[in-house]
Amino acid sequence: MHPPYFCYNHLDMTEDNYSKENDLVLLAGPRGKNLLINLQPGEKLQTHVGEIEHNDLIGKVWGTRIFTHLGKFFYLLQPNLNDTLLNLKRSGTILYPKDIGYILMNLDISPGKRVIEAGTGSGGLTVVLAKMVGASGHVYSYEVRPEVQRLAEKNIRKLGLENQVTFHNHDIQSGFIEENIDSLFLDVPNPEDYLNQARSALKPGGYFGSLLPTNNQVILLLEALYHNQFAFTEVCEIMLRYYKPLFKTFRPEDRMVAHTGFLIFSRPIEWTEKEIEE
Amino acid sequence: MHPPYFCYNHLDMTEDNYSKENDLVLLAGPRGKNLLINLQPGEKLQTHVGEIEHNDLIGKVWGTRIFTHLGKFFYLLQPNLNDTLLNLKRSGTILYPKDIGYILMNLDISPGKRVIEAGTGSGGLTVVLAKMVGASGHVYSYEVRPEVQRLAEKNIRKLGLENQVTFHNHDIQSGFIEENIDSLFLDVPNPEDYLNQARSALKPGGYFGSLLPTNNQVILLLEALYHNQFAFTEVCEIMLRYYKPLFKTFRPEDRMVAHTGFLIFSRPIEWTEKEIEE
Amino acid sequence: MHPPYFCYNHLDMTEDNYSKENDLVLLAGPRGKNLLINLQPGEKLQTHVGEIEHNDLIGKVWGTRIFTHLGKFFYLLQPNLNDTLLNLKRSGTILYPKDIGYILMNLDISPGKRVIEAGTGSGGLTVVLAKMVGASGHVYSYEVRPEVQRLAEKNIRKLGLENQVTFHNHDIQSGFIEENIDSLFLDVPNPEDYLNQARSALKPGGYFGSLLPTNNQVILLLEALYHNQFAFTEVCEIMLRYYKPLFKTFRPEDRMVAHTGFLIFSRPIEWTEKEIEE
Amino acid sequence: MHPPYFCYNHLDMTEDNYSKENDLVLLAGPRGKNLLINLQPGEKLQTHVGEIEHNDLIGKVWGTRIFTHLGKFFYLLQPNLNDTLLNLKRSGTILYPKDIGYILMNLDISPGKRVIEAGTGSGGLTVVLAKMVGASGHVYSYEVRPEVQRLAEKNIRKLGLENQVTFHNHDIQSGFIEENIDSLFLDVPNPEDYLNQARSALKPGGYFGSLLPTNNQVILLLEALYHNQFAFTEVCEIMLRYYKPLFKTFRPEDRMVAHTGFLIFSRPIEWTEKEIEE
Repeated sequence: MHPPYFCYNHLDMTEDNYSKENDLVLLAGPRGKNLLINLQPGEKLQTHVGEIEHNDLIGKVWGTRIFTHLGKFFYLLQPNLNDTLLNLKRSGTILYPKDIGYILMNLDISPGKRVIEAGTGSGGLTVVLAKMVGASGHVYSYEVRPEVQRLAEKNIRKLGLENQVTFHNHDIQSGFIEENIDSLFLDVPNPEDYLNQARSALKPGGYFGSLLPTNNQVILLLEALYHNQFAFTEVCEIMLRYYKPLFKTFRPEDRMVAHTGFLIFSRPIEWTEKEIEE
Repeated sequence: MHPPYFCYNHLDMTEDNYSKENDLVLLAGPRGKNLLINLQPGEKLQTHVGEIEHNDLIGKVWGTRIFTHLGKFFYLLQPNLNDTLLNLKRSGTILYPKDIGYILMNLDISPGKRVIEAGTGSGGLTVVLAKMVGASGHVYSYEVRPEVQRLAEKNIRKLGLENQVTFHNHDIQSGFIEENIDSLFLDVPNPEDYLNQARSALKPGGYFGSLLPTNNQVILLLEALYHNQFAFTEVCEIMLRYYKPLFKTFRPEDRMVAHTGFLIFSRPIEWTEKEIEE
Repeated sequence: MHPPYFCYNHLDMTEDNYSKENDLVLLAGPRGKNLLINLQPGEKLQTHVGEIEHNDLIGKVWGTRIFTHLGKFFYLLQPNLNDTLLNLKRSGTILYPKDIGYILMNLDISPGKRVIEAGTGSGGLTVVLAKMVGASGHVYSYEVRPEVQRLAEKNIRKLGLENQVTFHNHDIQSGFIEENIDSLFLDVPNPEDYLNQARSALKPGGYFGSLLPTNNQVILLLEALYHNQFAFTEVCEIMLRYYKPLFKTFRPEDRMVAHTGFLIFSRPIEWTEKEIEE
Repeated sequence: MHPPYFCYNHLDMTEDNYSKENDLVLLAGPRGKNLLINLQPGEKLQTHVGEIEHNDLIGKVWGTRIFTHLGKFFYLLQPNLNDTLLNLKRSGTILYPKDIGYILMNLDISPGKRVIEAGTGSGGLTVVLAKMVGASGHVYSYEVRPEVQRLAEKNIRKLGLENQVTFHNHDIQSGFIEENIDSLFLDVPNPEDYLNQARSALKPGGYFGSLLPTNNQVILLLEALYHNQFAFTEVCEIMLRYYKPLFKTFRPEDRMVAHTGFLIFSRPIEWTEKEIEE
């Protein structure tokens, strides 16, 4: 038996250490089956291994085991950004956490920034951008398909981030509404068609990014960036390799996601008079 | 000649579009040679391709070319997190942006969070954590070597983030000072020796992370996590592959960084009475 | 319509261009479903998309489409080493072509070489070694489980390679029977226990190789190689990444095999008298 | 001290265990500096760490240490295919062993096969193909630049493989001279221009392969293969990752070769009458 000396002394705990009504919680179950739910007194959750009363989930210390009526258990946890993303209701593909983490670093996303994304999609990136720019920043999210955007709005509300995001149901062909934006991310199949609009929305020296699945698309975008006076262009791929976390037989997982997309980052630069004359 | 129609109309620009005194700026030069400097009126910068007066760098639109007295030019840009990290003064290795981006996602770093890191090192991760938790959060950074921590403090001040960070010159063997911390990152060679301390500092269900270069170290940490009632353990590697951004001959770069370290993420879980009795 | 000018002029063909009795053939079917069979006059093949008479497969030009009684077709092809390996009857795992190709290069396998492998397993590597050393070389294959070795023997006979291989149902703990061997490959979980035996079997400067799935195993082998006077030790991994072969949307496959094993290569070196005295 | 029980008993050794006149030997020196030389009695070798008499290298057991006049040592070894390739005199790039190993598997190279390659280049692939097809097979190597081919011929002679190879100084635009070839490898920048010629040279169901560095080239070749009735097309990349072979600090090397080229494999299939009519 392990001595319990490192257990939490529950007398020292603050209110923040316990789950409460309306919290978004992660129930981490057997074999990686995770559930993301909002705690609502009186409600009942149906899982593949039995039922759980929401009331039994409220007021518990985070990390506690919760048993179903069939005796199986889940851990009660606060979801992190990764959990939240991977458990979002979605239509179509969403960006992967591995790519989003690197996008944050390269587009300089941090509290206070004003950021545009198009299209909204299921709102996976929207969620992360909204969290990261915080109350002092803002996200403007464009999408032409209203029903897709409604799903993203629902996801954003579920996470309590609605004040950080403005959704535009608007075709970016006609330009973006905002100006002097810090960073802009195009998650569309043909970003090469919107570079002029992107430049107009970005502040000088702002950050442009995109993610594209095929080489053919990257080639088209690289050519367009070149002709539209963007510079410091970088193309990369993030390969995430998981390992089996077993200390006696430590080794990589047998299979992995081999490709999500190519990340392209670039920055608009100023035209000098000389170049304009040429 | 490309038509200049997408150039910025300088009349519409806000103050924010121009460099000013005390700004931290990136001079992006030929062949990827970048310089990160604080603009100080009257000062002069020596580069490998000639001199530049700081005064010539103040009041310019971001993205403008600045020429040295030898006629070579740099682009004047606002540095992003990546630029900042890669140009920090350092002693020893620093975490790479590819790894930091994924750490942010997995340790749930966002505005308002309280985070511990140990050791401070050159402060690369400190900078990113401080920026991301914002004014409403805080970073507590531990380091036993005072001279190393002084460099990190200097880096943090240069970036104006000193209010977000508390530096402790303190051996974590005797435990962390703070409690109820959201996330904790151990960048030390032997994290397996501090899991008990980490558990005491973290709030229930908090996030633990570490980065280790060798398989031997990961094996030791995995065993310790197992014996210390941590769960949801993940081990992964981020492989970042750059491509030559050339639209006529698009292909991966010839060489790449093959290894920085293994990322380990885990979460302390609650001991149930049954387990304590066993 | 494409002009048929590059079709084969069947008058110029030699006997070798046609399938014949007893040939091992590959029927490459829809969606990558491949069948490997020996052509036997009068027999009938049952496939998931209908029946084919062996007689209809004999005397056809390689590359021809063969239709089942349900109107679906397969291409009639000569199998290459890859096809043969991936379609072998197997018990347990087999070595992957990506690893075998690199083993051939590093163990210096070529016509005329004498090679030991242990254990035989399903005979995947045995097949390739036997083919490559040709009639002037020989493969000695050790295995303690007779029923496993019988399967390998069957695979070898099916490919007509029985004269190139000697199977030993023999525990290598007591040493290998042959001496002055060019190359030796240990495909066992604990190769560190047989280095002394390997050294006795290998000719001076011969090639030793092994494949191990876990880091823990590699660490044990590296330590044993060091203490047993092996040198020029290399450890590597072969990551094989497939692309979708689509010219309009060229991109990597979504998923890949992330890990088969670590390849270890080493060479016994001579003890100098000075070292023996120490 | 390690017991010497596993040292070779020199009385049991055959002539093959000793180096002799004209042998191609590898001197494996400090820090990975390797030399590949032909032993010639009376000659003297100049190295960066002193001189060695060829006479001192003749008649030694493989794996022995040989000391220079300055007291530094090299190991005397028989070179394997990898060593041979990496130490060839070359003009321009050569194929890497990692790629060649997989080419062997996919083009079904083995004793007795007749193989075409174009262009010859420095003869790296030529060497391996010639060794693998053995005395019963043959390699036909095409190259338009005579001075380049002369270097390859010299490399082939140095290795005693001249009877296995026929060099053609010939433009493949006008077609290949041989017919009914088992396998054909195009190592040229524009393989899409020679598919018709390749089909005429290959036997039905033969193997076609190519290696191309850029995505743009692969896209062109994929389109041409599609229009020229090739099938079973595969595109892949081999990523070779080395590890530091240290048992106390086992980990991947810091840097790696990230890209050599994309491998493309395909097979010509027969035109059915229906398709010809369309």
